[in-house]
Amino acid sequence: MELAKRLSKLGTETAFAVSTEAAKHTEKGNKVYPFHLGDMNIKTPENIIEATIKAMKAAKTGYCPNYGISQLREILAEDINRSHGTDYTIDNVAIQPGGKPTISKFFMAVMNSGDEVLYPNPGYPIYESQIEFQGGKALPYTYHEGKDNFELDIDEIDKRITPRTKLIVVNDLQNPTGAEASPQELGALAELIKRHNLFVLCDEAYFDIRYEGKSLSLASFPGMAQRCLLLYTFSKKYAMTGWRLGAAIGPKELIDVIAKLNVNDESCSNHFIQYGAIEALTGDQSGSKEIVNTLRERRDIAVSMLNSIDGIRCYKPNATFYLFPNVTEAMGRKGFSDYERFRRAALRETGVSFCTRLHFGRPLPGEMDGPDPQLYIRFAYSGIDVSDIKEGLTRLKEWLDS
Amino acid sequence: MELAKRLSKLGTETAFAVSTEAAKHTEKGNKVYPFHLGDMNIKTPENIIEATIKAMKAAKTGYCPNYGISQLREILAEDINRSHGTDYTIDNVAIQPGGKPTISKFFMAVMNSGDEVLYPNPGYPIYESQIEFQGGKALPYTYHEGKDNFELDIDEIDKRITPRTKLIVVNDLQNPTGAEASPQELGALAELIKRHNLFVLCDEAYFDIRYEGKSLSLASFPGMAQRCLLLYTFSKKYAMTGWRLGAAIGPKELIDVIAKLNVNDESCSNHFIQYGAIEALTGDQSGSKEIVNTLRERRDIAVSMLNSIDGIRCYKPNATFYLFPNVTEAMGRKGFSDYERFRRAALRETGVSFCTRLHFGRPLPGEMDGPDPQLYIRFAYSGIDVSDIKEGLTRLKEWLDS
Repeated sequence: MELAKRLSKLGTETAFAVSTEAAKHTEKGNKVYPFHLGDMNIKTPENIIEATIKAMKAAKTGYCPNYGISQLREILAEDINRSHGTDYTIDNVAIQPGGKPTISKFFMAVMNSGDEVLYPNPGYPIYESQIEFQGGKALPYTYHEGKDNFELDIDEIDKRITPRTKLIVVNDLQNPTGAEASPQELGALAELIKRHNLFVLCDEAYFDIRYEGKSLSLASFPGMAQRCLLLYTFSKKYAMTGWRLGAAIGPKELIDVIAKLNVNDESCSNHFIQYGAIEALTGDQSGSKEIVNTLRERRDIAVSMLNSIDGIRCYKPNATFYLFPNVTEAMGRKGFSDYERFRRAALRETGVSFCTRLHFGRPLPGEMDGPDPQLYIRFAYSGIDVSDIKEGLTRLKEWLDS
Repeated sequence: MELAKRLSKLGTETAFAVSTEAAKHTEKGNKVYPFHLGDMNIKTPENIIEATIKAMKAAKTGYCPNYGISQLREILAEDINRSHGTDYTIDNVAIQPGGKPTISKFFMAVMNSGDEVLYPNPGYPIYESQIEFQGGKALPYTYHEGKDNFELDIDEIDKRITPRTKLIVVNDLQNPTGAEASPQELGALAELIKRHNLFVLCDEAYFDIRYEGKSLSLASFPGMAQRCLLLYTFSKKYAMTGWRLGAAIGPKELIDVIAKLNVNDESCSNHFIQYGAIEALTGDQSGSKEIVNTLRERRDIAVSMLNSIDGIRCYKPNATFYLFPNVTEAMGRKGFSDYERFRRAALRETGVSFCTRLHFGRPLPGEMDGPDPQLYIRFAYSGIDVSDIKEGLTRLKEWLDS
């Protein structure tokens, strides 16, 4: 058997290797503090589970339409219209088995071989992987550490655009930095997108994981809804990561293509869990509020404890469940300049398991080999309780201060 | 927005259009006899539902590994070994959200641009769609109406092979013909595959929907397991079509690639339904036996009634839930030579809804425009009860005899 040549361009989530190492450390009898997970250790609200069971028992076990069930598509369009000020209808929604499938289907639907695609780096590694695997050219744009947030440099993005640049991936409320653009920055980004006639994959996976203020979508700016495909997921807001349910939301012409790709790939998403999703959107919201409250408490403690460690500085994002502390000084003081050595030493010495900048895309030229490299690690607090956050970060502090 | 050029090569299941027309006929107040569906109107066995509910309530609602949960992979490998005589282990199994995703991932993993791929025509239309969408060249091979079965012509397949032919899709126990190769034919096919160093997508979706005899896999022949990727699905055997759960089973090297594609596409399959699948494979089997018994009764009546219609001849397959009657004479007597006109007239005049040969790939040169065209339609009996089979086929007979 000869494997396909294009596989050389296929990336992955290298964070899975961190999970494997953490599991091995546990097996040796050590306690691990799992800050590396993007998963959640929070239960799906009971009303969603009950609605799903009811649907299973009512024999919603056969195929459903490739677009998803009509009632869910309608309700989701209305829900998005309320938060986004858009005028989506059922025709603008194709249900997916998770948030992620929208990424690969977006590129299948709108990217030609050789097209240049702007994507965030550091960022979710599947963008880069799918752009290159499907024959596009991945052009990174980056975030800069600002006063109290990671910031985009719109002029820098503008300069990267060539006549071959067709698409841009935007993941405001970002993994891994937790960055959030201001309304002014988003507006400038929208203008740039229209000026260069780009089309956008708008990854809104963390839109509703929000502690203060209000999330704003690129699709809410004038003329942008017809330029955006929104990646929606039930995974985070309702603690449904393992259910695999999400949606692609965008112009009908594109949604029809994505639904045709559904027929080719997975036929349809699981039928009965779509009734659970209807309950999620229309039923009692105390479950999703409780999820955000739980995460907020974790964030506050984690940020405060990280900032108490000498040589670490960490923003307090208003959304997502990620922190991206600058650890340049702390690493230097312990004699580390290599991310992987630092990460493994921290796991070995303290049990604290985290990802580093390396798990979120290839480092950019000059970033690590320049005169003033700045080093970052990523903490997720979605899969670890407050007591373990305290214990783990106390151990980390002791080790780094020693 | 400009759509991707490659979409011109993307096919679909045109059978969905038949469903839409049938639904419209129902809305007008008519009774429809749904022989067009590949879906099942049979309930998933209760023990599978209960095991799934238990897993949901035990909070199996977070991500699971991209390969699927270990216990299910192990049990499925053992189950396949029992029926196939293979020696698969957990390393040979990657769980998928349905049987179908194995098709697109197979071509992503082993096909290069310009590779020639043999595929059955008439056959499941997604093979042709995915071969061409992903840049391959789809070379049809066909089935011939024999004495009491549709038959492959191994020499004819042999002649189609060129140095650029790398892959072949085999769907023994076939949709739409219900054809089953004899052990001798399968053996000859295995020899041909080895002689030409081909790799095989072995679609075994109907392996366990079997009324008499024993199913035989191409992977059971010497040296073939390392040349086959098996498409496995829980959909049919356990009436779980809408659950979307299946697996790719094959050489570890290929399974690792497919699991990496899982990370890129959907992360993992739904977590808690995998516990339902464990119960399906290891628990009480009376549910799956009952499913086959129900289908057998439907088959017997449908075949007998179809053969009682003047100008129709229909084989009685030992497996699948499809019939592929030759309707050349019946159509001719009613003045039809066009498939779509015949299909629509039958729906309008009798309420009997079926697919035709046209829904299973582009007709081959000479097939319809030759001196002696033979015309076929496809009946599925998975979604229609015995009483409606009787009523519908009585109406069809009356119309065709009138």
